[in-house]
Amino acid sequence: MMNTTTEHGYAAGRARRDQIIAEATVLFGRLGFHSTTVVEIAAQCGISRAGLLHHFPTKESLLAAVLEERDREDRARFRQNGSASRDGISVLRGMVDLASYNSSLPGIIALYAVLSAEATAEDHPAHAYFTKRYERIRSETRIALEQAKAAGHLVDGVDIPAAAIELTALMDGLQVQWLLAPHRVDMAQQLHQRIQQLLVTRL
Amino acid sequence: MMNTTTEHGYAAGRARRDQIIAEATVLFGRLGFHSTTVVEIAAQCGISRAGLLHHFPTKESLLAAVLEERDREDRARFRQNGSASRDGISVLRGMVDLASYNSSLPGIIALYAVLSAEATAEDHPAHAYFTKRYERIRSETRIALEQAKAAGHLVDGVDIPAAAIELTALMDGLQVQWLLAPHRVDMAQQLHQRIQQLLVTRL
Repeated sequence: MMNTTTEHGYAAGRARRDQIIAEATVLFGRLGFHSTTVVEIAAQCGISRAGLLHHFPTKESLLAAVLEERDREDRARFRQNGSASRDGISVLRGMVDLASYNSSLPGIIALYAVLSAEATAEDHPAHAYFTKRYERIRSETRIALEQAKAAGHLVDGVDIPAAAIELTALMDGLQVQWLLAPHRVDMAQQLHQRIQQLLVTRL
Repeated sequence: MMNTTTEHGYAAGRARRDQIIAEATVLFGRLGFHSTTVVEIAAQCGISRAGLLHHFPTKESLLAAVLEERDREDRARFRQNGSASRDGISVLRGMVDLASYNSSLPGIIALYAVLSAEATAEDHPAHAYFTKRYERIRSETRIALEQAKAAGHLVDGVDIPAAAIELTALMDGLQVQWLLAPHRVDMAQQLHQRIQQLLVTRL
């Protein structure tokens, strides 16, 4: 019986943790990290401030959990789309697929848009996270383009390091325009069109 | 003498107003609109909260003044670069020039990155401003590309409405990467390279 109770306790704790992360994601995305208070997040979860701090002792640790959770989901989605294959095209396809999937998640898009901009300040708790994140995205995009080139998929003369920066920037910039005017901007189509221009193969 | 005193008063008032706008620009850019308090801005100016509210009765009115001032400076810069000519190329050149000029103004870039992301929330005081601003930038870029096409500067087959969205997005996305890694990302060069790909004429 002890065991069952503990397992129930674990499951309830996990469910509560997940709920706190979900509500924090929404509020950070709407108000930014600085303006969102632990009290507001707790209220959205129907618990007390102390109840929340039991799971996440600081707002910074909650932010880290929100970002970790997003990265975990994105990576799972990427793997599911076969981005582990080596011809680069599938990673590029994965970027378009992600843009398409993101179009159903304005809250998450807003979260990243607000946090990445806030985090350009060196004293922001997510500054190191976003600096590394962009390094990683640029590097992964560069590798995908190099693999696509090696497999003969790339048009001649593509400046691969510049294209990696460009595609990363394009995705970010489209998100802000899409959030402000969702019916005017099709993120996935725009990204698909631009990547297709770099390829001799159909994306 | 009365006249001189009044003029002195006007000049001092204008100088104070300019100072408040300058300090607000820095703080909104670092902390975002929501997290910056009127008290902090006043403190940076060496005046009291009441002293600040004499010039700007609400934080929203100060935000409006910050954005107006930026638009005024940007338009002046654009005119100076001869963007009023009708072949479109000069507007495209003006975009690259602006990216280059912006590279000396990380505070302003951060301001726009943070505010535009925050303002995607419908209840943000700058929501209408940014919605209209992007409409305008897309529209001006589209017109510049159409003029460039009419003058024979564009490569065949450019999807002009998509390219207008793309260039606008590219500029925004480059800004966040540049703020996080200024030595890795050359905004003006990236933008120049991409616009050049759309042209048969040298930019």
